[in-house]
Amino acid sequence: MKLATLKSKNKRDGQLVVVSKDNKSYADASTIAPNLQWALDHWAEVEPKLKTLFDDINSKKIPGLPVDVSQMAAPLPRAYEWIDASSYINHVLLVRKARNAEPPKTLRTDPLIYQGGSSVMLGAQDPIFLADESWGCDFESEVAVILADTPQGTKKEDAHKYIRLITIVNDVSLRNLIPAELEKGFGFFQSKPASAFGPFAITPDELGAAWKDGRIHLPLVTHYKGKKFGDPNAGPEMHFSFFELIEHICKTRAYTAGTILGSGTVSNEDRARGSSCLAEVRMIETIDTGKPSTPFMKVGDTIEIEMLDQSGASIFGKISQKVVN
Amino acid sequence: MKLATLKSKNKRDGQLVVVSKDNKSYADASTIAPNLQWALDHWAEVEPKLKTLFDDINSKKIPGLPVDVSQMAAPLPRAYEWIDASSYINHVLLVRKARNAEPPKTLRTDPLIYQGGSSVMLGAQDPIFLADESWGCDFESEVAVILADTPQGTKKEDAHKYIRLITIVNDVSLRNLIPAELEKGFGFFQSKPASAFGPFAITPDELGAAWKDGRIHLPLVTHYKGKKFGDPNAGPEMHFSFFELIEHICKTRAYTAGTILGSGTVSNEDRARGSSCLAEVRMIETIDTGKPSTPFMKVGDTIEIEMLDQSGASIFGKISQKVVN
Repeated sequence: MKLATLKSKNKRDGQLVVVSKDNKSYADASTIAPNLQWALDHWAEVEPKLKTLFDDINSKKIPGLPVDVSQMAAPLPRAYEWIDASSYINHVLLVRKARNAEPPKTLRTDPLIYQGGSSVMLGAQDPIFLADESWGCDFESEVAVILADTPQGTKKEDAHKYIRLITIVNDVSLRNLIPAELEKGFGFFQSKPASAFGPFAITPDELGAAWKDGRIHLPLVTHYKGKKFGDPNAGPEMHFSFFELIEHICKTRAYTAGTILGSGTVSNEDRARGSSCLAEVRMIETIDTGKPSTPFMKVGDTIEIEMLDQSGASIFGKISQKVVN
Repeated sequence: MKLATLKSKNKRDGQLVVVSKDNKSYADASTIAPNLQWALDHWAEVEPKLKTLFDDINSKKIPGLPVDVSQMAAPLPRAYEWIDASSYINHVLLVRKARNAEPPKTLRTDPLIYQGGSSVMLGAQDPIFLADESWGCDFESEVAVILADTPQGTKKEDAHKYIRLITIVNDVSLRNLIPAELEKGFGFFQSKPASAFGPFAITPDELGAAWKDGRIHLPLVTHYKGKKFGDPNAGPEMHFSFFELIEHICKTRAYTAGTILGSGTVSNEDRARGSSCLAEVRMIETIDTGKPSTPFMKVGDTIEIEMLDQSGASIFGKISQKVVN
């Protein structure tokens, strides 16, 4: 099924709605669960009811209201954890090269992962507020899973049980703040402002055969300033699958329902597939010509991220943001 | 006033209670706010009601129930963010030396801070579950503030407005997992398991003159395996105050009510004050004798952390944990 969160003036966690398969209409689900966090906290009880509502809106047994993505918050407008991996080797190699840093020696055996901030998760059409262009604002197109309560010690073989929902993310990065921050040794902080999420989150079964081995085998399409920027496939080159990432994060602690785990910037070795962030393009330009020619994002720039199924239909709806000041 | 969260089988965020100044009795506050997160989300509305209840329990106008710390969860059993600084220079210098790492060049001008996991916050008497002693389990005694909704761009001059509550923390660390993790460049992850919190959180006014310039000017007392381990003062040597830390974290994003911000391990230059973690002691031993002689925590070890006011009364109640497997 497909879930979303309607913005609400009086409810900071928004209002849960079920969205039709064709993204066109939604039905209020707040009598089943007031918001998505509550639904995830009571999943066994609410899942069958939400499923019935999803069937009813798809069969037009109930009328539904027209979807307006500008009224959608992030599926979780605030989350208890936002954890982001960097699971595409091609991206790690290019971005490290871009900032003259060595790739970690354990690149292929130990996942790269960071703990992100989760106070404010932007809706799909919320602007990217950029106080200072010199910070070097970049987008990063990713896929992400939303977890159930997940115990410490979970192994990759069992990890599939704890994946409740899947969505897409724009993990905004402030590239020019990263080197000094990582130099201090404690990881990203100021360099990772609020991320934006796809308007819709789906249960894994909605992906059919494209959900395989803990990976999403479909292209993730990015348009920057109105032009196609990349459409790398999120599947085959995801070196550590979501199952392996879950085993990694569960080694020393447990997670509450609603924890969001990102894939890292989707990236393919084939240059014809383009990129999912500016840093990669700037590095490719440096390799080819000696210096980067594509600047980082400026006020007024637009970024769109979307994943289409085999029939060309948008699965998670479109992230469509503008940089503002 | 003094607030706490009673464990509840059916409510994962627990039940809000108001605790008397002498820590002896509590009154149910769930008719005012079901849990502390809800209270922080609706502070303007609930604060006066909680204050009245606090006055009534102190004056014995209402009877109150006896406090049993073993029944107390962390004030926020899960939180939207857990951010931890390392604001005591003496600690940074010793711990970096302990792992043969250079102190950052910006040690005195740019706060060291990391994003922690906030899915599971342990109650004051919850055990530290340690799956593997070879991970090098350490305690870290700290103070922390709990924030209101705090906007991006908040300056240190205004930061005091956003501090709702204060408590103490045991920021558990797995020292032997840190070097390989930091080597990868993305900061701590597996090396930071669940932290534990003082049973009571107080409003800053309860500290009187000890709350000054965004610092808590009182000793933080640690007992390890039943013996006094340290009582460094949390005030004068906190290089970056909570006000400065808030300005730092607000540079590029905003925070939701209930965000917890820690001071880092409290540490004084005067060796007579002892330490707030094993890593410091091990480094001092290395300096004095060539190698560390104090091992990391073992199953069965106990750790107690408490802050006393000038009259010797416990302010936040006692963190009292045992390592289990």
